[in-house]
Amino acid sequence: MSVAFAPAGMAPRQARVLDTMLVAQERLVAGFEGVEADATAEEASSAGAEEGGGPRRFGDHGWLRPAGGGGRARVIEDGLVFERGGVNVSAVVGERVPPTLAAQHPGTEGRPWFATGVSLVLHPRNPHVPAFHANFRYFEVGAAAADAGAEPLAWWFGGGADLTPAYPVAEDVRAFHGALSGWCARHPQADYPAWKAACDAYFTVRHRGEMRGVGGVFFDELTSHGDAGRSFVADLACVEDGIATLLPAYLPLVARHRRDPYGERERRWQALRRGRYVEFNLVYDRGTLFGLQTGGHIEAILMSMPPLAGWAFDHQPAPGGPEAAALAFYQPRDWAQGGADADPVDHHWRTA
Amino acid sequence: MSVAFAPAGMAPRQARVLDTMLVAQERLVAGFEGVEADATAEEASSAGAEEGGGPRRFGDHGWLRPAGGGGRARVIEDGLVFERGGVNVSAVVGERVPPTLAAQHPGTEGRPWFATGVSLVLHPRNPHVPAFHANFRYFEVGAAAADAGAEPLAWWFGGGADLTPAYPVAEDVRAFHGALSGWCARHPQADYPAWKAACDAYFTVRHRGEMRGVGGVFFDELTSHGDAGRSFVADLACVEDGIATLLPAYLPLVARHRRDPYGERERRWQALRRGRYVEFNLVYDRGTLFGLQTGGHIEAILMSMPPLAGWAFDHQPAPGGPEAAALAFYQPRDWAQGGADADPVDHHWRTA
Repeated sequence: MSVAFAPAGMAPRQARVLDTMLVAQERLVAGFEGVEADATAEEASSAGAEEGGGPRRFGDHGWLRPAGGGGRARVIEDGLVFERGGVNVSAVVGERVPPTLAAQHPGTEGRPWFATGVSLVLHPRNPHVPAFHANFRYFEVGAAAADAGAEPLAWWFGGGADLTPAYPVAEDVRAFHGALSGWCARHPQADYPAWKAACDAYFTVRHRGEMRGVGGVFFDELTSHGDAGRSFVADLACVEDGIATLLPAYLPLVARHRRDPYGERERRWQALRRGRYVEFNLVYDRGTLFGLQTGGHIEAILMSMPPLAGWAFDHQPAPGGPEAAALAFYQPRDWAQGGADADPVDHHWRTA
Repeated sequence: MSVAFAPAGMAPRQARVLDTMLVAQERLVAGFEGVEADATAEEASSAGAEEGGGPRRFGDHGWLRPAGGGGRARVIEDGLVFERGGVNVSAVVGERVPPTLAAQHPGTEGRPWFATGVSLVLHPRNPHVPAFHANFRYFEVGAAAADAGAEPLAWWFGGGADLTPAYPVAEDVRAFHGALSGWCARHPQADYPAWKAACDAYFTVRHRGEMRGVGGVFFDELTSHGDAGRSFVADLACVEDGIATLLPAYLPLVARHRRDPYGERERRWQALRRGRYVEFNLVYDRGTLFGLQTGGHIEAILMSMPPLAGWAFDHQPAPGGPEAAALAFYQPRDWAQGGADADPVDHHWRTA
């Protein structure tokens, strides 16, 4: 694919990964627009849509970075199913690798770098549909953009996906983790238990001692050893398969809950959980802080913010209710094994 | 005053400042509860209050800090006028001054420290009533709590007040700055132009290049030279006069706008401006980050969060409307002098 923001003179490998990200963006947006197109009249009415307004589409916002590269943000707001969300692709370059990264990769000091990635965040309107985040990225240091034949000094992939339900249901969480665990099982360089533990640790709102949701997987610095060209191809294949896992992991949960009834009470709890999401993203999320500190494209970075978030003093959910049951889910738990550990509170409130 | 959370064995000067903070809290809460008590039936109805529900009061939440000291948070939620807000007092001690502070005050390394302060945040329901924040604090290093006779090695006051209107009106901003400027004029150690400039710089959402509101004053490390005992008394008097300035600076603005009509459009704009407020507090505010990182009382720290905050992609207010006019206010401007610089856009949209 050719895009206006692509950095000039990308090496073939860089162009190849950017292409992966652009194809991913197209497919993901198509998948989510399909969800919007299936909205019933009742969903449209909940969304405050006027009769006959038709399904909502993702907008298309290109942006350029003065120092090189740019991105394309596909954003939906006020959708019938997705209240706010987006799928963003960027590809950026620099002449000198940031010092903190160079320190981790000796020999790369002062060399040019290239980064590209796709990230998505979805905040559904219905409080029973989980919010969803995923991100896959590629970083390369050392080969000048024009120096097309050279191997980079260092390269790696990173990424992950995590689920944030306001009203978690154990079978959904197991299905989501099962899809990610299945993806990892298909690639020797992927390590579900380690990546799941990294996700639990990363997406924790540390000042509250709770996860923002029910986790997923998170990995960084994936760069397989062995023949450089071959391991790059294998790692890219692993990432592409991870991207292909996103819709099958998430869309069934949307389908299962998009028509669940809800009212003011559920919207209020959703707003409070979104407040925790905001706390995590603005206080701890490395990508967000790196973007804000380095003059990234603010609106694309803060695409992750929910449409509405709430705070209340020392909120304590009513004992025995679904909100109290939800809290037990926001701690690390073994989801893929389906062991007894994974289901201590499931549904007991549903039969109450 | 005697409070349960007061650190054991405070020196007389420490007890004196804590007393100032506690008296301030009582008077401020009484002032704001008076505003709630004056609510009309229409205001109660906007707040969703049931008929005859009576005025809303500030709750009372004491907390203790395992390492010493604690606080008292007076919080209002779902008030008729104040949708969320609070007035918090804390007094905390430690055995060894934090290294970053010691570096700024040579000779204090490893010595005990004491800190107390009062802070308030109010998020009114009516989008035409500005949000308000103020904070006054005292820090002391070097005198052990039990060592009642000794002069501390270092002590200083800090504080400030700032206004965050979603729909700024120039005469209100001038009146607010005028009250603060008048306070400063009564004390030789206070410097309105410098403190106003510090406030503009501090309360800036740097990644957006805009202030969160229309500023006020901000000062730190106020410790007058000269006879130590006398300068402490003078600086405390300056702070107490600053605290006494808060209600007269703010309540007239509440009275002027609490019955202004508003609808969905104004609530939406208010939510977006509150989103910027959240961005500032979670990304930049030193007090918030210090509190979160050092295991402070989370709910008292995040008392500053609005009840509801919103985000929208690249929101651009309609040209010529009051929201577009508001944006021009969120840049540093000379308010106390009343010069031509201070009024470039005032009211032009009101006569449109």
